Amino acid sequence: MIKIVEVGPRDGLQNETAMVPTGAKVAFVDALSESGVSEIEVSAFVSGKMVPQLRDAAAVFQGIRKKKGVIYSALVPNIKGLDSAVATGADKISIFTAVSETFNRKNINTTVAGSLERFRPVVRQAKKLGLPVRGYISTAFWCAFEGKIAPAAVTDLAGRLTDMGVDELSVSDTTGQATPDEVAALLDVLLPEAPADRLAVHFHDTYDRGVANVLKSVSYGIRVVDSSAGGLGGCPFAPGATGNVATESVVNALAGTGEKTAVNVEQIHLASELLKPYLPEKTPAGPDPESLACKTCQFSGGSKCCGS
Amino acid sequence: MIKIVEVGPRDGLQNETAMVPTGAKVAFVDALSESGVSEIEVSAFVSGKMVPQLRDAAAVFQGIRKKKGVIYSALVPNIKGLDSAVATGADKISIFTAVSETFNRKNINTTVAGSLERFRPVVRQAKKLGLPVRGYISTAFWCAFEGKIAPAAVTDLAGRLTDMGVDELSVSDTTGQATPDEVAALLDVLLPEAPADRLAVHFHDTYDRGVANVLKSVSYGIRVVDSSAGGLGGCPFAPGATGNVATESVVNALAGTGEKTAVNVEQIHLASELLKPYLPEKTPAGPDPESLACKTCQFSGGSKCCGS
Repeated sequence: MIKIVEVGPRDGLQNETAMVPTGAKVAFVDALSESGVSEIEVSAFVSGKMVPQLRDAAAVFQGIRKKKGVIYSALVPNIKGLDSAVATGADKISIFTAVSETFNRKNINTTVAGSLERFRPVVRQAKKLGLPVRGYISTAFWCAFEGKIAPAAVTDLAGRLTDMGVDELSVSDTTGQATPDEVAALLDVLLPEAPADRLAVHFHDTYDRGVANVLKSVSYGIRVVDSSAGGLGGCPFAPGATGNVATESVVNALAGTGEKTAVNVEQIHLASELLKPYLPEKTPAGPDPESLACKTCQFSGGSKCCGS
Repeated sequence: MIKIVEVGPRDGLQNETAMVPTGAKVAFVDALSESGVSEIEVSAFVSGKMVPQLRDAAAVFQGIRKKKGVIYSALVPNIKGLDSAVATGADKISIFTAVSETFNRKNINTTVAGSLERFRPVVRQAKKLGLPVRGYISTAFWCAFEGKIAPAAVTDLAGRLTDMGVDELSVSDTTGQATPDEVAALLDVLLPEAPADRLAVHFHDTYDRGVANVLKSVSYGIRVVDSSAGGLGGCPFAPGATGNVATESVVNALAGTGEKTAVNVEQIHLASELLKPYLPEKTPAGPDPESLACKTCQFSGGSKCCGS
């Protein structure tokens, strides 16, 4: 049985230009709670100036009806964010770093080592409070600035996060460029260091390879998959750029393969329909890699820009 | 370089309930001609009573502007169909059979051997006229009636079609149930008998595994991929059932993998937009396998029903 971590309310909405009303987000999360997903990343306690789409994180957490058996998590960048997450009843926290030095500098304004130092007290405090910690390993395959990322660098960062006490590592294809062969090449070197039961995979569907990469990961023993209802997300400045791999597609693709999920696709569809009135229509055409320069963070070359 | 055979005008429209006006089909094919696809299956010269959506095959062929370097093909079930195809200037013909005895009986009312006998004079006549012949090997992975299809049965049928003079074999996942592992298992036994340069693959995206299956096929050396602009098709009686894997997705997925296509995604998108006014909106949710019984042919259990 494959567990689905629904990241639409956080990673999806963070990468939509639209400002979705708090009430609609609450309804979205409540609908997701009924779908059979294992975990929902509800929001992020980050600067409202940097990510205005998620500035109502506390209100969303306070509004939702938690369902027994579902884990409700929040992304936090620092102790202040952790305190807010704890105050609103988050069950789990996520921290966010990247393998690429350049990406880290542009995205969170520090080096990889610096990001680890910044997170060390956050992880320590979370563990003291008994909260599990997920660590996003962003740019695990490609970086818009540095190009192809060496699998050894991912393994090194995974080891450092584990040493720090991070419980779960979400290996993230930030730019959506990974191919199934590249997924295999990374897992070949990563799995001996970080066992499958501590890993999740996080793919974006920018090049329509999200499902193929999920299937490859699952064939390697990965049991936790991040996805987003309705494929929410996408760089706000790149028309046609798609976001996280859609939960519907992941669930459909795993159905009948012997690696099922407990997720009801119709319920996921109902949940994403709740956001439809607030989001612009997506064009089915894929992105032109040349047009993917984001006006916020200057990412280009196939990047999904300033998100995980 | 991977060649794309655009099957939207035939396999796509055949499986849409909507009746698209002839003029819109002509505009659709003409737009596809400008996209960089190698081949377009324009229509089928079949009974207008059985497949009313394609009853204007001759008018469509007469209306299109052929572009140099693009192959324009037609599906034909018999000598009469071949004559019509030749009269309207088709460059290539396709014939359609299936591995499953039950599918053949229900779909074209004969046995597998009977279908080969029926096609023998068609192939002979086409060769005499210098027309290349494609043979669809339908239900190459699963059959709605017979379940899993043995790879050996596919290899056997491939051999018989080749012996008959068929130039190209399109290995078709009629029900959309194939997984990348099943694609690998079939190609492992099929390639020694039918070399990659005589094969095409034809996937449906019913379970969102179309792209994953294409990528797996390409990694096995397959160089010809069937797809449909906008993912046209789907069982008309199964809401949410999707059709052929979308050309846009295949082109995006191959971009940047070293196995590019010559296809311009924007042009494919423009082409499929031309049909939008005539087609019902697709729901993004996947099909419920239990709801896939087709009222026409009584197929069920994940089948795409009466099409290739």
